[in-house]
Amino acid sequence: MAELYFEDLSLGLTWRSGPVMVSQADIIAFAQSFDPQPFHTDPEAAAAHRLFRGLAASGWHTAALSMRLFATGETRPIGGIIGNGIDELRWPRPVRPGDALTLTCEVVEVRAPEPGKSVGWARIRNTTTNQNGEVVQSLVVTLSIPRRAKG
Amino acid sequence: MAELYFEDLSLGLTWRSGPVMVSQADIIAFAQSFDPQPFHTDPEAAAAHRLFRGLAASGWHTAALSMRLFATGETRPIGGIIGNGIDELRWPRPVRPGDALTLTCEVVEVRAPEPGKSVGWARIRNTTTNQNGEVVQSLVVTLSIPRRAKG
Repeated sequence: MAELYFEDLSLGLTWRSGPVMVSQADIIAFAQSFDPQPFHTDPEAAAAHRLFRGLAASGWHTAALSMRLFATGETRPIGGIIGNGIDELRWPRPVRPGDALTLTCEVVEVRAPEPGKSVGWARIRNTTTNQNGEVVQSLVVTLSIPRRAKG
Repeated sequence: MAELYFEDLSLGLTWRSGPVMVSQADIIAFAQSFDPQPFHTDPEAAAAHRLFRGLAASGWHTAALSMRLFATGETRPIGGIIGNGIDELRWPRPVRPGDALTLTCEVVEVRAPEPGKSVGWARIRNTTTNQNGEVVQSLVVTLSIPRRAKG
């Protein structure tokens, strides 16, 4: 496993995590708990829906699965992933039963620690794609990340 | 139940949903599935954490619970809540075991349907508060919402 300190986060650094599989049962169970709308819980109603044309995962389910990939990947920021905020969260395509999701993380902004502080900031663009390479989610997360202790 | 059409969404219109209760078991179960970091899954490790000082729900759990309030409230947009995007998602305070969350929705932007179209757009600020009135999450969601069919 590679744990990234602040000094490791150069602009453009990219890493990947996954895949994670999504079943129809997963989609329905999440939606029944958190987003109980027919296009997320009922395959027949979803098939007739003018936009979805079939069962689609709640966007918040996609977000939660993407977080799992971010937090459990072989490469990840050190010290725990504590998001100070999320911007530009988009779901350009639905996640479908049987999809396999992969997360790509790219460092898009870095800010050095303030004088005397041991923690810098980074903004990381997280893009979730399905097994066909189609983007199902994108967001930018702002994280605080410790620098290495001075030797 | 009040279902809101596009014409009902005047700037500043506000409604509330909830509360929903959050237990320690809920927090741990969600985190084990989607955000398995010790400050979300292990009360002892969380108590020792420099920021959290106790078990804290994953921000994505707070987001999912807030979606449940948005989608199941007595007042809600008609036709299904299909978010075209989320901006400015923030978690200023953690959700704790035993919290009771309430969602406040406020219309902050409206855009009329394009000529010949039956669907307008709105941006709605969703603010989730705990039983002490403290904000635990805020976001702005962009939704497409049908107007009333002409009589």
